[in-house]
Amino acid sequence: MEESYKSIKIEGKTPNSRVIYLYLNRPSQRNALSREFFTEFPKALSSLDQNPNVNAIVLSGTGDHFCSGIDLKTLSSVTDHTTSTDRGRFSEKFRRDIRFLQDAVTAIERCRKPVIASIHGACIGGGVDIVTACDIRFCSKDAFFSVKEVDLAITADLGTLQRLPAIVGYGNAMELALTGRRFWGLEAKELGLVSRVFGTSYELDQGVRLVAEGIAEKSPLAVTGTKAVLLRSRELTVEQGLDYVATWNSGMLLSDDLKEAMSSNIQKRKPVFAKL
Amino acid sequence: MEESYKSIKIEGKTPNSRVIYLYLNRPSQRNALSREFFTEFPKALSSLDQNPNVNAIVLSGTGDHFCSGIDLKTLSSVTDHTTSTDRGRFSEKFRRDIRFLQDAVTAIERCRKPVIASIHGACIGGGVDIVTACDIRFCSKDAFFSVKEVDLAITADLGTLQRLPAIVGYGNAMELALTGRRFWGLEAKELGLVSRVFGTSYELDQGVRLVAEGIAEKSPLAVTGTKAVLLRSRELTVEQGLDYVATWNSGMLLSDDLKEAMSSNIQKRKPVFAKL
Amino acid sequence: MEESYKSIKIEGKTPNSRVIYLYLNRPSQRNALSREFFTEFPKALSSLDQNPNVNAIVLSGTGDHFCSGIDLKTLSSVTDHTTSTDRGRFSEKFRRDIRFLQDAVTAIERCRKPVIASIHGACIGGGVDIVTACDIRFCSKDAFFSVKEVDLAITADLGTLQRLPAIVGYGNAMELALTGRRFWGLEAKELGLVSRVFGTSYELDQGVRLVAEGIAEKSPLAVTGTKAVLLRSRELTVEQGLDYVATWNSGMLLSDDLKEAMSSNIQKRKPVFAKL
Amino acid sequence: MEESYKSIKIEGKTPNSRVIYLYLNRPSQRNALSREFFTEFPKALSSLDQNPNVNAIVLSGTGDHFCSGIDLKTLSSVTDHTTSTDRGRFSEKFRRDIRFLQDAVTAIERCRKPVIASIHGACIGGGVDIVTACDIRFCSKDAFFSVKEVDLAITADLGTLQRLPAIVGYGNAMELALTGRRFWGLEAKELGLVSRVFGTSYELDQGVRLVAEGIAEKSPLAVTGTKAVLLRSRELTVEQGLDYVATWNSGMLLSDDLKEAMSSNIQKRKPVFAKL
Amino acid sequence: MEESYKSIKIEGKTPNSRVIYLYLNRPSQRNALSREFFTEFPKALSSLDQNPNVNAIVLSGTGDHFCSGIDLKTLSSVTDHTTSTDRGRFSEKFRRDIRFLQDAVTAIERCRKPVIASIHGACIGGGVDIVTACDIRFCSKDAFFSVKEVDLAITADLGTLQRLPAIVGYGNAMELALTGRRFWGLEAKELGLVSRVFGTSYELDQGVRLVAEGIAEKSPLAVTGTKAVLLRSRELTVEQGLDYVATWNSGMLLSDDLKEAMSSNIQKRKPVFAKL
Amino acid sequence: MEESYKSIKIEGKTPNSRVIYLYLNRPSQRNALSREFFTEFPKALSSLDQNPNVNAIVLSGTGDHFCSGIDLKTLSSVTDHTTSTDRGRFSEKFRRDIRFLQDAVTAIERCRKPVIASIHGACIGGGVDIVTACDIRFCSKDAFFSVKEVDLAITADLGTLQRLPAIVGYGNAMELALTGRRFWGLEAKELGLVSRVFGTSYELDQGVRLVAEGIAEKSPLAVTGTKAVLLRSRELTVEQGLDYVATWNSGMLLSDDLKEAMSSNIQKRKPVFAKL
Repeated sequence: MEESYKSIKIEGKTPNSRVIYLYLNRPSQRNALSREFFTEFPKALSSLDQNPNVNAIVLSGTGDHFCSGIDLKTLSSVTDHTTSTDRGRFSEKFRRDIRFLQDAVTAIERCRKPVIASIHGACIGGGVDIVTACDIRFCSKDAFFSVKEVDLAITADLGTLQRLPAIVGYGNAMELALTGRRFWGLEAKELGLVSRVFGTSYELDQGVRLVAEGIAEKSPLAVTGTKAVLLRSRELTVEQGLDYVATWNSGMLLSDDLKEAMSSNIQKRKPVFAKL
Repeated sequence: MEESYKSIKIEGKTPNSRVIYLYLNRPSQRNALSREFFTEFPKALSSLDQNPNVNAIVLSGTGDHFCSGIDLKTLSSVTDHTTSTDRGRFSEKFRRDIRFLQDAVTAIERCRKPVIASIHGACIGGGVDIVTACDIRFCSKDAFFSVKEVDLAITADLGTLQRLPAIVGYGNAMELALTGRRFWGLEAKELGLVSRVFGTSYELDQGVRLVAEGIAEKSPLAVTGTKAVLLRSRELTVEQGLDYVATWNSGMLLSDDLKEAMSSNIQKRKPVFAKL
Repeated sequence: MEESYKSIKIEGKTPNSRVIYLYLNRPSQRNALSREFFTEFPKALSSLDQNPNVNAIVLSGTGDHFCSGIDLKTLSSVTDHTTSTDRGRFSEKFRRDIRFLQDAVTAIERCRKPVIASIHGACIGGGVDIVTACDIRFCSKDAFFSVKEVDLAITADLGTLQRLPAIVGYGNAMELALTGRRFWGLEAKELGLVSRVFGTSYELDQGVRLVAEGIAEKSPLAVTGTKAVLLRSRELTVEQGLDYVATWNSGMLLSDDLKEAMSSNIQKRKPVFAKL
Repeated sequence: MEESYKSIKIEGKTPNSRVIYLYLNRPSQRNALSREFFTEFPKALSSLDQNPNVNAIVLSGTGDHFCSGIDLKTLSSVTDHTTSTDRGRFSEKFRRDIRFLQDAVTAIERCRKPVIASIHGACIGGGVDIVTACDIRFCSKDAFFSVKEVDLAITADLGTLQRLPAIVGYGNAMELALTGRRFWGLEAKELGLVSRVFGTSYELDQGVRLVAEGIAEKSPLAVTGTKAVLLRSRELTVEQGLDYVATWNSGMLLSDDLKEAMSSNIQKRKPVFAKL
Repeated sequence: MEESYKSIKIEGKTPNSRVIYLYLNRPSQRNALSREFFTEFPKALSSLDQNPNVNAIVLSGTGDHFCSGIDLKTLSSVTDHTTSTDRGRFSEKFRRDIRFLQDAVTAIERCRKPVIASIHGACIGGGVDIVTACDIRFCSKDAFFSVKEVDLAITADLGTLQRLPAIVGYGNAMELALTGRRFWGLEAKELGLVSRVFGTSYELDQGVRLVAEGIAEKSPLAVTGTKAVLLRSRELTVEQGLDYVATWNSGMLLSDDLKEAMSSNIQKRKPVFAKL
Repeated sequence: MEESYKSIKIEGKTPNSRVIYLYLNRPSQRNALSREFFTEFPKALSSLDQNPNVNAIVLSGTGDHFCSGIDLKTLSSVTDHTTSTDRGRFSEKFRRDIRFLQDAVTAIERCRKPVIASIHGACIGGGVDIVTACDIRFCSKDAFFSVKEVDLAITADLGTLQRLPAIVGYGNAMELALTGRRFWGLEAKELGLVSRVFGTSYELDQGVRLVAEGIAEKSPLAVTGTKAVLLRSRELTVEQGLDYVATWNSGMLLSDDLKEAMSSNIQKRKPVFAKL
């Protein structure tokens, strides 16, 4: 965690807490996603994934906004292969660049531990790509969202079109992606994009902290198992998903955590689980 | 129907009605799911499926609650293979045990006839597994739900992680499964987990009965066809699903029920359909 | 556009607008879907798809209703193969007939340009099949919907059972399809079936027009790309969908539209995009 | 059948036979695939599909070769959008062009009736795309094949990469597609690309005729059913495919053809089936 | 094993051997599949699956043939619903009947232990359905096969069309299913339908016994794991299949069998594995 | 390329050649796969993938054998978590370890450039996992293969069970995996596991070199495109695969390589393609 990043910031807040805070940290650019971000973000998530002291990750933005989307400079750098005179080679290189950017967002899913998006202010374009890859989303009332790419004459390509339909329904996803319209926290809740909406940023912080701490105190085996199984079952039939989770639990269900959960339950005390 | 069960109870309520009531029936244990349940429940559903006098099934709980989840004794019996000294054989046996339990829940989907969950009081853990496999869900305002497994240090493995996302959206499913938090009838309605919420248990009973009777009076061919096609299409592409239903209807659409529906419509009378 | 249709009507409303209006046009039969409709509708959509002056299509109904479903005469004509004495050949022919009808509805998805359903009055049976294939759905408060087929003793086979679950959730889709119950505009909004509900038909017209014009002024490359990628990703895993959109954009992102979007943005003026 | 085509030719050979012969018919260009071909071929197949006198189709080439692949002029016409100055619009149009060409090949699968490829001489590039979409492939010993596209610096895009692996195995398909190497009839048989190889063109003709006549005399319901079910099952799980064929046969198995097959069997005579 | 069956026969051959022999046992009808077979066969397989003394199953036929296909009486009984006057109800019932028959064949896959088909003489129609569901297939030179259904005017519906393509390639499967032609042992080997072909029935018996005993002496955990993982991976992407087997092995790899395999290897002795 | 590896070795052989040779390089252990291998191999492939001077990779083994499978020490290290007293945590960690090992093999597919396996001597267990992930396989007559895991009481988990069925057919894959039997070069060719078999190791070297050089001189855009599209289409339906390749080629077909291929063709000279 001592590693220093430019585009992001990592912080613990409470001693002994297993919750860690990861901030998009370019407040002067409304946390626009820079080239560096796409390298640093997956690196940070991978390191948090391997850190046994971390059970849950809160993803937030410093300053007034969560994220204003991809940095125009980043976009330009990506599209700057135009110097290549070969149409085919340009496309081949460009495709790999997009895959690279996508991969940084998918890092959220590769991380075994739950990532909770705490959203205030703008959550635009690339910001939506990021939060749809998170496991839980909370926001404040003043948060506003837009699948903005269509207004930049771009077909969104960092994950929103793939992940949003399962979250808000296919019809809502199409409408939001075709219109690019702005919507606020309360509607985000109604649509199912966020699970809870808070009156103020302060309340959002408190609410997120409470939930994150709650998850961090649960069995890390069960928490990471739940995330993994839900993610994988998303693309399996019900029958295949049932087989998968039965196979998963054949090795993992019978754990010290299960015993601790049961005995603490009987003893009417809070369970304490080992690190993962 | 004369068969006697220990963990469940089957009742007709109105003479000549094609609605049957199946109760989880261990009220003193808040209808916790016993070992017996996992044998009796699929057996009962299979027999109701073959009973031509039954067109619709209401699933409910006796006493104050719908279902408090899997019985701790059942859980213990499942995890009790620890006497086996072979890690591999334990897992192999354990996996089959989980598959067996899952199968009892999936019996709801194997039953051609619609199963309507009528939920009051607690619907916890295994209870959620069961209701997500039902075709329609109604509840009273005081019903409360929890994807509780995570608090027992368990990755839920009886179907909730596979079926809930399609019902309440992927984002909501993840939040509910990671937090295990309790939510009540009104929120269940908002999330789409139940189709309607009623003020009292009495109103719930009346409402469920009305809807169940309504379905039971419709063409059983069309009702079972609709359930079968929706279930299968859940795992097919739209194009594959369209092909499937066209193939289905090529043999089944032109039925006596269609004629009866049409002529009763012209004659402005209630249609009467033969048994299935 | 000069072509004349019997069951539908095509109209531009504003000079230079790239929005076109396609009406179901048998108001005296509450726009019931005739045999002709199933030939004319896909033909019209295909021609609008190829018309470079059209960027967005509004689908609506003349008279008091959007659509009362399939014409009983059409249904009879379909089921009229009973004259065939061969059970097998009847089914084979009947299956192809259903596929043909389905294909007319799927024409909405084959059309690259977004189709916005503007729904007032009745939207019943085949009307629901049609609107679930549309890209955006708006309605007035007095609009009412019903997945009516079950009451005709029919398993719905023109697309509702395949497309509705992704829009309103699997649970809601099952309940609506099994009960066939009527629901109104406000509930349609709550369910996610429509994106917005308007107080009156007049307001609906205004609202739809505004949104349609907004989309029609966006980059047609980005709009059709968004529709195409969302449709295809619906049946791919997230990983496959990400690969698909990266491949798509490798050839299409770097366009004149992107340059226009960027420079108009800098120049703080409205972008003007070439036809597609 | 009276329709006259430029790039293909359609012939019956024996009176009362239900076998029809479709020839690629530009022998002076070794049956290279012209622009016209891509319009005429699907049109011809669709018309043969609807012709009740046709039960089986033999696809062959006039002159010394089956098919030397896509005409360079066609290729140039496709790539000629370079006049378009917009990179994005070029790609968008180009993609639709490729889809159009693909569609002409897929017409073989859309045709309900079996298409038997009779291959002699060259079967190169586009020729391989075509034969892999056929239902049965026979060739003479002197037939030679090449997945040639890689030598034109092209990733094959008319179907070979999608269909060949299921026919010859994934490993063989990769080797053939990466090397573009030529292989002859006997190896084609060994690889499973053709079902039989004949010593001479004459023997090929005789052999194909015999098999085609044999199929044409079978129940057209069973023959088209077998083709349809195999095609659809190719993309379903075994369980989904079993469900599909059971549903198919629920309407179609019990036919006059079944009765005729059974009674002719008992009477030890050749069955005679009605047209489809 | 003491249970007595009419259509099949179960035999051990060598004391202490973990190989069991299951015979189709109606030699006078060339082992045609009777109604009873479809009940007894899955019952027997399920009981062998649970029998810890059985590690491998050989499936063979008594008398001169393996299996001549479905009994005409069985077929008649299935199609005998024609007494039902309702076309729709007939199809609904008929579909379930076919599903029931299919299920008896799929019982081979549900059995955890490998089933080795030992084929001599006729293997026709339903016989092919059965052997394609087996795990290993051996035959004698005089064995002959035919996907015969097409000659009975039937689209094969007990599994051949679903399983054969993965075994012999899609092209060969289509040719065999459309022509229904007879082919012998040597060609079956060439096509990949059988793994080995033996000169005589006696050699076949010896060869099968050797292989079956060999498998029966291996770790039953590894053998059943290999079967289960191959079966499941058949319908998963490579990535999903890799995840599945890793999850499987996380609980099952580290077993007493692994230790025994390793220590016996070091001690250069034959391993002895516990029962499963 | 200057990087030095312990378990592998990388060599160019001919100046200016775009073929590179990657050797498994622990000849004294018959190239058993060490822990180091699983780190070095993917690293090497990734660096070759990015090296513009490399167009094709030959994978071979130094010494007398290709690969004798996973090192027993590696296996022990993997299974050594037994020190962990928590059954659940052990499985969780173990699963990740297997995923890590799998990932090293899948690196062959992630590499855009074709990897040609040149196999002599033993190719056992992990060796089969590796070669089934390669794009082309050649071997000498004395090469011998075994899906050996079953004899170690292990369900093979590094890819063979996922990739072999598509290469040799599902039936052959099951037989080889259940018996673990040894088979030689000629049978490997018959099964489709290798594309060619050579009499001696020397001839193998010459043959592989010729093919590798041939591929390396082709358009790298077309070669990498062919690999990418075949890999992706393996898990898509034919229709989805056709869409994918059309989208791919919309950006990449029109390249300098296409022009060079065409003009060199007209000028009857060897084409020279730019690096990728």
